[in-house]
Amino acid sequence: MIDLPSYKDIADAAKRLSGVVRRTPLLENPLLNEQLGGRLFIKAEPLQLTGSFKIRGAYNFISRLDDNAKQTGVVTFSSGNHAQGVACAARLCGIPATVVMPKDAPKLKIDNTRAYGAEIVLYDRYTESREDIAQEIAEKRGAPLISSYDDSGIITGQGTAGLELAEQAKELGAQLDDVIIPCGGGGLSSGCALAISHDSPKTNIYIAEPEKFDDTKRSLKTGELQHNDVTAKSICDALLAPTPGDLTFAINKELLAGGFVVSDQEALNAMAVAFRYFKLVVEPGGAVALASVISGKIDMAGKTIAAVCSGGNVEGEMFQMALANEKN
Amino acid sequence: MIDLPSYKDIADAAKRLSGVVRRTPLLENPLLNEQLGGRLFIKAEPLQLTGSFKIRGAYNFISRLDDNAKQTGVVTFSSGNHAQGVACAARLCGIPATVVMPKDAPKLKIDNTRAYGAEIVLYDRYTESREDIAQEIAEKRGAPLISSYDDSGIITGQGTAGLELAEQAKELGAQLDDVIIPCGGGGLSSGCALAISHDSPKTNIYIAEPEKFDDTKRSLKTGELQHNDVTAKSICDALLAPTPGDLTFAINKELLAGGFVVSDQEALNAMAVAFRYFKLVVEPGGAVALASVISGKIDMAGKTIAAVCSGGNVEGEMFQMALANEKN
Repeated sequence: MIDLPSYKDIADAAKRLSGVVRRTPLLENPLLNEQLGGRLFIKAEPLQLTGSFKIRGAYNFISRLDDNAKQTGVVTFSSGNHAQGVACAARLCGIPATVVMPKDAPKLKIDNTRAYGAEIVLYDRYTESREDIAQEIAEKRGAPLISSYDDSGIITGQGTAGLELAEQAKELGAQLDDVIIPCGGGGLSSGCALAISHDSPKTNIYIAEPEKFDDTKRSLKTGELQHNDVTAKSICDALLAPTPGDLTFAINKELLAGGFVVSDQEALNAMAVAFRYFKLVVEPGGAVALASVISGKIDMAGKTIAAVCSGGNVEGEMFQMALANEKN
Repeated sequence: MIDLPSYKDIADAAKRLSGVVRRTPLLENPLLNEQLGGRLFIKAEPLQLTGSFKIRGAYNFISRLDDNAKQTGVVTFSSGNHAQGVACAARLCGIPATVVMPKDAPKLKIDNTRAYGAEIVLYDRYTESREDIAQEIAEKRGAPLISSYDDSGIITGQGTAGLELAEQAKELGAQLDDVIIPCGGGGLSSGCALAISHDSPKTNIYIAEPEKFDDTKRSLKTGELQHNDVTAKSICDALLAPTPGDLTFAINKELLAGGFVVSDQEALNAMAVAFRYFKLVVEPGGAVALASVISGKIDMAGKTIAAVCSGGNVEGEMFQMALANEKN
């Protein structure tokens, strides 16, 4: 039996995060709504401290560690957004952080993680195991190893984004038919699903994943944990986890209505829509939920839908590729 | 004697706008703060309804018109952001709008103005007078002509951005040393100066203008209204007013501490900074206050400064020029 986190744990996390993380806005655009024939909200997590939702879980985890962590530090592995979240949260708590990052992570993410004061250990995503490297460092130092998704503290921290989303929709007088959430390992989606299913029980909750990394969708279908071919390529660098977590999948299989799979080109198109209509910088992986709507994978007619835009840590070169699609 | 608007008029406008416009976030980035050696906030008006602050003044003006306006409609002239603000506000109030726009305005701004349902009349910025064209239409129809800046209702509506900025800084425990505001005709700067000088009297208030369109800075220096060469070119299309307004300058000459002049390249650099650190899309004219800070025109050391980013209605091609500067 796994001990699953609860709604109350998310409410507690929200108190812990108050005054540290931002309540990011829930945005809509009347012209885009007209084109779509429904009401579309986006939850703007690129505006979050560190440029993605990841600071929510990281701070929720790290702020509860005892004083011993000031000596041992914390260790984690991440392609970049969790890395920045952990580095920033650790600094806020006065705790050293070591982050194992893939050599091919966006330079922006590596630079920012270092700028928050973390020690960085690079590895080769195609030949080395980040889990093994991080585990070895953690054991040697007696340091806590922070999972990027499969941990109750991480899940409930990320869930505070869903808590806000449900509150904000209520404040705007909107009854959400559907919410779509980007999914890598499932920390954000499972946390948000816990929060939204409690506060807005009639809302259908979907995940969006990149092509070739649709492990959660396939796992939902088969009921068993499915794996991705981690040598596959995708521009959605934030969503390349090899398999769903035990905890995250245990929650997601109960609460999700299904999943959408998004191509690189569809993610780029969604980034251009976020640029044009929301004036928001969204990274490829952060745009997959919005892409599910824009590419017509879900019927918007007469409906009210929220898409979580989970991060905006993208380099200029990649963003220019998205803008090349901008229709004037 | 001119009858100048007061702080109370701005507080009244804020009540009128409540639930219609957004309270846009005041953002900061700890890594950028470290680089600058101070604390920098940006007021994120690109996230405002219509993508700029202009809806604030337009709605404050139009929502108070009597029922006769439903027949006559309203008329205005604008390079694009005020056009969208008027078109959107008029639609919210069920009033037809006609907008005189320069032929060389960004296509995005013309398209959006039309999408909000306004009738558009194009003119040549180098050979025709927009004032004359708009005046003639307004007289023929008996319709109110809405100034884009030199009107008490417009000024006090725009001032609500300053009201929010002062409140938000207080909520974040910050005492603002300086605030910098983009300036075309001076509606935003005079309204914000009225609000901020009341709520935060120790704060120095500056404007930022594009090169060749520094009429307000020159007017502040001479005490007399100065004009720009309107055939000059600048990528800051939102800030090309020919001269300060009578009302706006009467306020600004009392309340401003001075002005900064920004080159096209400095505006592009600031757009790249907003992209990288704030995940925000800012248009060239909207970026001149931030550019004043980034280019070192004001000393940040140990200070707390807020820069208003006034709009984000920029086309992909121009934004790509800004990203070409992004250092990775």
